[in-house]
Amino acid sequence: MLPNRLRMLWADGKPALNGWLSIGDAFAAEIVANQGYDAVTVDLQHGMVDDGAALAMLQAVRASGASPLVRVPWLAPAPVMRALDMGAHGVICPMVETPSQAAELVSFVRYPPTGTRSFGPTRAAVVDGAAYGEGADTHVLCFAMIETARAFADVEAIAATPGLDGLYIGPADLTLGLTGRRYRTGFDREEPEMVDAVHRILAAAKGAGLRAALHCGSPAYAAKAVGWGFHMVTLPNDVRILARGAMADVVETRTMLDNRRS
Amino acid sequence: MLPNRLRMLWADGKPALNGWLSIGDAFAAEIVANQGYDAVTVDLQHGMVDDGAALAMLQAVRASGASPLVRVPWLAPAPVMRALDMGAHGVICPMVETPSQAAELVSFVRYPPTGTRSFGPTRAAVVDGAAYGEGADTHVLCFAMIETARAFADVEAIAATPGLDGLYIGPADLTLGLTGRRYRTGFDREEPEMVDAVHRILAAAKGAGLRAALHCGSPAYAAKAVGWGFHMVTLPNDVRILARGAMADVVETRTMLDNRRS
Amino acid sequence: MLPNRLRMLWADGKPALNGWLSIGDAFAAEIVANQGYDAVTVDLQHGMVDDGAALAMLQAVRASGASPLVRVPWLAPAPVMRALDMGAHGVICPMVETPSQAAELVSFVRYPPTGTRSFGPTRAAVVDGAAYGEGADTHVLCFAMIETARAFADVEAIAATPGLDGLYIGPADLTLGLTGRRYRTGFDREEPEMVDAVHRILAAAKGAGLRAALHCGSPAYAAKAVGWGFHMVTLPNDVRILARGAMADVVETRTMLDNRRS
Amino acid sequence: MLPNRLRMLWADGKPALNGWLSIGDAFAAEIVANQGYDAVTVDLQHGMVDDGAALAMLQAVRASGASPLVRVPWLAPAPVMRALDMGAHGVICPMVETPSQAAELVSFVRYPPTGTRSFGPTRAAVVDGAAYGEGADTHVLCFAMIETARAFADVEAIAATPGLDGLYIGPADLTLGLTGRRYRTGFDREEPEMVDAVHRILAAAKGAGLRAALHCGSPAYAAKAVGWGFHMVTLPNDVRILARGAMADVVETRTMLDNRRS
Amino acid sequence: MLPNRLRMLWADGKPALNGWLSIGDAFAAEIVANQGYDAVTVDLQHGMVDDGAALAMLQAVRASGASPLVRVPWLAPAPVMRALDMGAHGVICPMVETPSQAAELVSFVRYPPTGTRSFGPTRAAVVDGAAYGEGADTHVLCFAMIETARAFADVEAIAATPGLDGLYIGPADLTLGLTGRRYRTGFDREEPEMVDAVHRILAAAKGAGLRAALHCGSPAYAAKAVGWGFHMVTLPNDVRILARGAMADVVETRTMLDNRRS
Amino acid sequence: MLPNRLRMLWADGKPALNGWLSIGDAFAAEIVANQGYDAVTVDLQHGMVDDGAALAMLQAVRASGASPLVRVPWLAPAPVMRALDMGAHGVICPMVETPSQAAELVSFVRYPPTGTRSFGPTRAAVVDGAAYGEGADTHVLCFAMIETARAFADVEAIAATPGLDGLYIGPADLTLGLTGRRYRTGFDREEPEMVDAVHRILAAAKGAGLRAALHCGSPAYAAKAVGWGFHMVTLPNDVRILARGAMADVVETRTMLDNRRS
Repeated sequence: MLPNRLRMLWADGKPALNGWLSIGDAFAAEIVANQGYDAVTVDLQHGMVDDGAALAMLQAVRASGASPLVRVPWLAPAPVMRALDMGAHGVICPMVETPSQAAELVSFVRYPPTGTRSFGPTRAAVVDGAAYGEGADTHVLCFAMIETARAFADVEAIAATPGLDGLYIGPADLTLGLTGRRYRTGFDREEPEMVDAVHRILAAAKGAGLRAALHCGSPAYAAKAVGWGFHMVTLPNDVRILARGAMADVVETRTMLDNRRS
Repeated sequence: MLPNRLRMLWADGKPALNGWLSIGDAFAAEIVANQGYDAVTVDLQHGMVDDGAALAMLQAVRASGASPLVRVPWLAPAPVMRALDMGAHGVICPMVETPSQAAELVSFVRYPPTGTRSFGPTRAAVVDGAAYGEGADTHVLCFAMIETARAFADVEAIAATPGLDGLYIGPADLTLGLTGRRYRTGFDREEPEMVDAVHRILAAAKGAGLRAALHCGSPAYAAKAVGWGFHMVTLPNDVRILARGAMADVVETRTMLDNRRS
Repeated sequence: MLPNRLRMLWADGKPALNGWLSIGDAFAAEIVANQGYDAVTVDLQHGMVDDGAALAMLQAVRASGASPLVRVPWLAPAPVMRALDMGAHGVICPMVETPSQAAELVSFVRYPPTGTRSFGPTRAAVVDGAAYGEGADTHVLCFAMIETARAFADVEAIAATPGLDGLYIGPADLTLGLTGRRYRTGFDREEPEMVDAVHRILAAAKGAGLRAALHCGSPAYAAKAVGWGFHMVTLPNDVRILARGAMADVVETRTMLDNRRS
Repeated sequence: MLPNRLRMLWADGKPALNGWLSIGDAFAAEIVANQGYDAVTVDLQHGMVDDGAALAMLQAVRASGASPLVRVPWLAPAPVMRALDMGAHGVICPMVETPSQAAELVSFVRYPPTGTRSFGPTRAAVVDGAAYGEGADTHVLCFAMIETARAFADVEAIAATPGLDGLYIGPADLTLGLTGRRYRTGFDREEPEMVDAVHRILAAAKGAGLRAALHCGSPAYAAKAVGWGFHMVTLPNDVRILARGAMADVVETRTMLDNRRS
Repeated sequence: MLPNRLRMLWADGKPALNGWLSIGDAFAAEIVANQGYDAVTVDLQHGMVDDGAALAMLQAVRASGASPLVRVPWLAPAPVMRALDMGAHGVICPMVETPSQAAELVSFVRYPPTGTRSFGPTRAAVVDGAAYGEGADTHVLCFAMIETARAFADVEAIAATPGLDGLYIGPADLTLGLTGRRYRTGFDREEPEMVDAVHRILAAAKGAGLRAALHCGSPAYAAKAVGWGFHMVTLPNDVRILARGAMADVVETRTMLDNRRS
Repeated sequence: MLPNRLRMLWADGKPALNGWLSIGDAFAAEIVANQGYDAVTVDLQHGMVDDGAALAMLQAVRASGASPLVRVPWLAPAPVMRALDMGAHGVICPMVETPSQAAELVSFVRYPPTGTRSFGPTRAAVVDGAAYGEGADTHVLCFAMIETARAFADVEAIAATPGLDGLYIGPADLTLGLTGRRYRTGFDREEPEMVDAVHRILAAAKGAGLRAALHCGSPAYAAKAVGWGFHMVTLPNDVRILARGAMADVVETRTMLDNRRS
């Protein structure tokens, strides 16, 4: 099996930077994966990525050495198992709300007798070797997203789920879930109420010996989160990088032209 | 026919900002096209874009209002005519080296009796209307790239080609062509020899009543080029925006983490 | 946010014509969307359309001005939320059978605290603007299909679901569901029993202040349905148009040839 | 409707050889389907195949005359109904564990009043004729996979499900399910415990008048299974054929070169 | 080798109806091919079809029994040979202007020593059998399009090219080529000047023992052309069928609604 | 730049085994590339591979460590340069017939002032580093195929082309070209006339200090060719491996069944 860069970093006590892929294109994925991230996540929930694109993206990022992760669209056996059969070294599952859902998630990720994963690692065995089946249960990472009021209320119990590897915070949904429309949507929360919530989830993860990960909207917030103790921080996704970069170029050029003219 | 934003801007004496698409993905194209460019060019020469992707990209940029252009892979009738049938409002042809090649290019772009374009505007007629055939010759833009020593030596004669709309400078190839390996490859030339070359081509275009366009690597150079009189300047492409933005995020985060640690 | 053509028409008391896309191809979708429909629906249930094709189709129909709708494959959070993240301005959900299922559907379509939609409008925010999140709940349309005996029995209660925008009748399934194999399958029912059923659903919708939509197999039936009070009528899909048109040409030609010969 | 080769063979008392497609490519599928199999199955569970690829593969195998089957990703109405709408002549459903799940599966495959299949055979009606709807229920095949401890414990009751056509054994999962990690993973079980299990499932199928099918890893085991009474045996899939064939060529060449050298 | 339906019809003295595919989608192609045409042509010149789509379309039409033809994008060895390697049973080459170009075309279609076709019938050998290479030269059809003034002037000499199977008239281009912009663009010419031109080309073909084919815009004109002696007539393409059918439905419905209202 | 495995092997005096990819699918390519070949070639001439598929395939084989090569469809600047921009470490050009064509080929592969390659290594620079442009001319491999009578007659002069790296023999075309239809088509020629021809080309390559490569149909012939002194031998392609392997399984199973029965 390919060395899982995330497990190696964490064993060394180092934090991991995660890239996020929401454009369903393998060349865009290859470009991003080559810029120095420790992991890259193919987003099958909110990303404009279907299964065919995900396969191509996982192929394209393979040579970069970054750990390939998949955010699955929802908690269900087929998408979780398929992501792993495609060669993902870990899954991030959105909207996990209860301990029993967390246990279900874990069961989809591990082979019997531990779990209920169906055997057929079609691409995984091609790229990670014929012995994939033997090592999979100990290598593959399983993250539950904590992003609703219900999950937040029970986060310590969720964190206690045997076999779970980590908690992953989705701040946009968590803010909607905990505060409704009181605050703007988005990442990088600065409201004390939300910062407290983030810290409580972090503490729940650490208390249970799990890894904690945070979805961030900027390098500054990501660095701050690492300072808080997060093991993995996600940086802005490809859509934001492309949109903000293109807009910056256009605005900068037009501003210069306006300045010249005046 | 859709209003050609480029012709309207130029009629008003305004310069145009051109985006450049080298990732063969329609969602990436849609993101870029929505950031305020006046035109966007699908690059079929050096872009990782095949004809199927080009079609999807042209569809995705249609609603943005930016003029859709195609850089064709080479001077040949099939790719030039196909780009127009797909609905491009203009073509940019690389490596045009002689007046007779420029004339050939023009002939591929115009219907008989002016040129030799074969009739069958399959998508163009769907999106620009059943009367597409009547207006095409006066609306479609035809740019010849000047980027070799041979073309440079004869640029005034090339500019005199009847029916040609503009000259487009490819500074990376032009530098290789005029100076071999003396300078680094790339855009935004600062060597006096190359700046002079750029000005000579600009002058040739203006002298013949053509539009002049320059491929740029930064907003600053683009703004400078508009100051020189260029009618269209191309800003960094999607590949560069994505790579530089992702790398900047990673580097910025790692630097902050290093600073915290020390 | 793009103006939702359907809401504008209905505000003016006008009926809407809906096109239906079952061929998973963006150029076919663009051709259809340009013919004057008020809305076009990408069919992810019975259409030969997967998520990647749906994305491309939504991009291709964007410039037409028709409201882009998606029929989701089934009542489940992932496909409903994904359709909206892709930029659909409304969803039509098949096989809704009970008030609680209708409530679930509504919850998938609205953000908390109203519903449970997860936040991440990846393409929607690109094309409808950064403020998409704020307006989404009031703009996006939510239709429940009434097409089984169980749904029919409880249609008034389903219609009373808070947040639901409309009922959409699938006559082929409804006929199977209410009458088994007694009648031929298909649309445009003329059996008094089925016409009565259609009217009861229409009345349930109107009684609850909802919009009512009917899937039709011909312009004549569609016009009749508008006369009955339907707010939206769906015309024949791309598969039928293509098959019936090609067959008509072949048959017409062969008939002429036979007539000449005899 | 196309003649279902499987039903014809079985009516003649002949066994069927099934090919298995896990590469999501229509040309690979066409190559395989042309080599003499009686059926070919597109694997949407463990195969690297999404819905778009499945459609193309079903088109590509149509002319071969082999019965097109689909293994659906999981027991759920949308994927089962979609496979049939795409033109599959049968579905194989993984991980069926109880009689009520088997009954659910059957209901997804049959139209009302027998089942709950939604009407809209978009491609099926194109390729199998306008009368598809009338014959579908009697032609389409419905296989439940028996591959967990829970299913095994109740296999006779599952086999008694009205409307089910057959049981399909997945030996890799069944071994994991019945014996945990005691034995290697894979097909072609030789352990007496597993051979007994296979025979019990075969007997349950036969006892209920169903067809029995076995997933095999070699021609030798497949032939043996036919001798035991299996009606359909699946031969190695495209991934294995390609990997083993390429590796054999490389190894054979390198061995010859080594022998020459020494 | 598959029986070439066109050669069989012509041997029986019967005319052939040709469908035309300009939407690059395999399901659209399958729908069209199933409606009773004798041949279907994948248009790689003006169609929105790239090589990948063409392959899928050729696979999708295979089972229909219609002869699969390809209009290549231009006279050049690579596209002609590739169309045949993909399994086309004939090529139609646009813009052939001289006898030497016609001879070049023939050489691309036939293997040495007759021609210069490179050997590698990758899909053709899969679907038409291992003996494809032996029969190809006698089965594959080679049509030169006559559609420019230059070709028209020398049509009898072009028709005399050894190995050429037929002349194919493109009336839109021919009209532009012979008359400039004097007449509207399009098919189904009624101007005496153009009707004469069509008859002269027909006579040239017949005089040389070739097949003659005409691109038509309606069943009525197609039937008339068969009456004139054409061996193959092309009916309206998929784009026109879809656009005209959708528009007809919309217009018919709106008209009925207007009539009701007034 | 990635280390070019071929140059390293040859520097060590070792022969290289080349895999050949004619199925246009990235997963099939990844499977093959992982089986131990030293190079893999994406075939854009006779393969069912278009540019979009080629890009995906080059991405998929990147991690295997095998040198990625492309057989371009024909001698022309656009396809040769595009293959290199896509990241191919070498090109194999079919049907090179004269020294001037060989010189043209070399010019397309090298940047000015040596050649005429246009600068824009879009993917190459992403995967092989920003310094790609500096090392490309010394790393990229350029093979001319010798496979016609005309090329054979002048093979020594072709081999003398400055900048050419190797000659690649296509035995099927060469046999057609030198002997017409006298012998069966295909590889692994045993006719003394053809064996002599192969040796003459090998000698011409060696005499000029070039690498010699032979397309083979079996490990045995490949090993023999290495014994003759070939630097690279191509083993059977993916289409053959898949077809022969599937057929072998079917035949073996049916034979066993027949034997049991009798």
